[in-house]
Amino acid sequence: MNARNAIDDERWMRQALALAESVMYITAPNPRVACLIVRDGQLLASGATQVAGGPHAEVMALRQAAGRGLDAAGATVYVTLEPCSHYGRTPPCADALIAARPARVVVAMRDPNPLVGGQGIAKLRAAGIEVTTMVCAAQALALNPGFVARMTRKTPWLWLKLAASLDGRIALDNGQSQWITGPAARADGHHWRARSCVVLTGSGTVRADDPQMNVRHVDTARPPAKAIIDTRFEVDENARIFDGTKTWVFTKLSDKAKAARLADRNVQVVEMPASGGRVDLPSVMRWLGEHEVNEVHVEAGSRLSGALLQAQCVDELLVYTAPVLLGPGMGMACLPALEDLAQAQRFEFIDTQSVAPDLRLRARHIERWKALLQTVQTGNIE
Amino acid sequence: MNARNAIDDERWMRQALALAESVMYITAPNPRVACLIVRDGQLLASGATQVAGGPHAEVMALRQAAGRGLDAAGATVYVTLEPCSHYGRTPPCADALIAARPARVVVAMRDPNPLVGGQGIAKLRAAGIEVTTMVCAAQALALNPGFVARMTRKTPWLWLKLAASLDGRIALDNGQSQWITGPAARADGHHWRARSCVVLTGSGTVRADDPQMNVRHVDTARPPAKAIIDTRFEVDENARIFDGTKTWVFTKLSDKAKAARLADRNVQVVEMPASGGRVDLPSVMRWLGEHEVNEVHVEAGSRLSGALLQAQCVDELLVYTAPVLLGPGMGMACLPALEDLAQAQRFEFIDTQSVAPDLRLRARHIERWKALLQTVQTGNIE
Repeated sequence: MNARNAIDDERWMRQALALAESVMYITAPNPRVACLIVRDGQLLASGATQVAGGPHAEVMALRQAAGRGLDAAGATVYVTLEPCSHYGRTPPCADALIAARPARVVVAMRDPNPLVGGQGIAKLRAAGIEVTTMVCAAQALALNPGFVARMTRKTPWLWLKLAASLDGRIALDNGQSQWITGPAARADGHHWRARSCVVLTGSGTVRADDPQMNVRHVDTARPPAKAIIDTRFEVDENARIFDGTKTWVFTKLSDKAKAARLADRNVQVVEMPASGGRVDLPSVMRWLGEHEVNEVHVEAGSRLSGALLQAQCVDELLVYTAPVLLGPGMGMACLPALEDLAQAQRFEFIDTQSVAPDLRLRARHIERWKALLQTVQTGNIE
Repeated sequence: MNARNAIDDERWMRQALALAESVMYITAPNPRVACLIVRDGQLLASGATQVAGGPHAEVMALRQAAGRGLDAAGATVYVTLEPCSHYGRTPPCADALIAARPARVVVAMRDPNPLVGGQGIAKLRAAGIEVTTMVCAAQALALNPGFVARMTRKTPWLWLKLAASLDGRIALDNGQSQWITGPAARADGHHWRARSCVVLTGSGTVRADDPQMNVRHVDTARPPAKAIIDTRFEVDENARIFDGTKTWVFTKLSDKAKAARLADRNVQVVEMPASGGRVDLPSVMRWLGEHEVNEVHVEAGSRLSGALLQAQCVDELLVYTAPVLLGPGMGMACLPALEDLAQAQRFEFIDTQSVAPDLRLRARHIERWKALLQTVQTGNIE
């Protein structure tokens, strides 16, 4: 009999979550998942989800156990996401687990995929396996907010990266913005690009800075796509951002010849409905969700940042703050004046990290996070 | 023989520094100092400086030892500041220590008081006592930056308290500023008022908010003085800030009748030279230094905050940041536009603290801190 107390369960699940973090950059559009097989307080085997099309975490762990001449019969299996019950790119993990006959399966969070939605857990129980759920659910969600967002609300999880002075300036009045924050903050930013499915910017930033918007300082086998909001399709075809990586240009105007030329550089021009004279941003988010984008990393000027905030598209703020006051300059986000403080969108600080000499502050949209947490916590699964 | 290795010395000194913190609010204009008497790895007695005119830390510790029937002969004494060698309000602590005949005295930092300046240490050595210096000097300075600043550069240590949104707004365009940050941040701010010698604000803030600028939420037997920068002496005599606590009004205009009426409320009106049409702020800082002010806590509007920054009077930023973006609004500090980022005054983050839902960020002026650290570290004392 395995130790079944909640402290042990939480300890093993935290170890599983740490393992799932190790595949942060490679699993998209699949979620980052890990699985541990434990017996009598000993770890028999572990595994994490591989690149899309490759084996899921449960199968990796069962294979490792088999490779060691061990099996999972009677053991406890910890998995950071409900085992899948459907045929996707791979066969259902719930079936693989049932075949391995563990005594118990501990699941961090329910699979928000409507094709699974509690059925993986139900299948295990129907096979006589004890299932414990909701162990470290919030931490498990924090690993995969984009996957959960895409499965439930049909749009990705979006974070807005900002690099600013303590008084909220992203550039001087004369336009100088390189560099308010230091090399450590910039390198850290590349980790966030690397974990995203797409790095999104605006045509104004492409024009002003001609950025590459690629991943440097981080090894990744799966570079994120790039995307540009370019209402009037004015982007320079020779901009450095077009480096052969899959790139989407969202625009409200069509120019077939220009689009065809860009197609040769792996650029897809997508016509979008307009609202208020510019590309409708919620439509872009839905389009990205339909195209298997889990997480969007935004690095843009204050106009696009402000427009995304106003369109209620920003789920998280990723702010690098430099210990300096600049006075006049460009603000973080162009927003309309509020009449009352109570009208402001509320975020909550979730993490503070030194990236000396700067600080990295993360803040999450309170309501949108709560909505996701509810979808992975509730349901007819107990 | 006592253990003399550096790790032990540092451990005891940290304990002494923690004890010195316990008298944070009461010792001004004296520094916060603590003293431990240790023999064979055991703490015999300890003491911390009392209110001004009361005994210093060394005397408190020696008295406690005597009260326990113990003496310091042959022991090691840890003291967070060089023992004084002069007659001030009390007799020299160096003499008291010499009479107690410890084998060794460990000193965190040199006394910046020109009346001491290494002579306390010299006296101990001349009496045959071994002295070790510079143990945790930076931490010791951090407890008393104001005392050291006043003794060396003749002006207090000044921190600027700011409460702002993530995008650096201290108020909406319509003037609404209560409350961008929450109750925990406001309560924390009162600890910083309590440790200061004077809470400084501007006449604009007094007119706009009619603040009390007193200490609440913190028990203190020594309320700080208050001060107002009021160039044209326009302050309302019935403002709530005039509550009988010692208050200074710095102005460039005189109005003897008004000054006389305010004197009845413990208000001293001080005429100051002007520069650029307003009260010269470096002159105010020198005046405060002459009047035994160690630490200045500033809560003001963006005009006075900006003027203090421009006048190179701000040693530290104490920023409470709310997880919200406000867009248009009043900035943290009115400053002239920079031509180049390199012109900005550089601070360094020294502490980040959650005051949920907000964050407290502290940043220290790099050069001015280094200058103080040098004065307590160097000198003819080894």
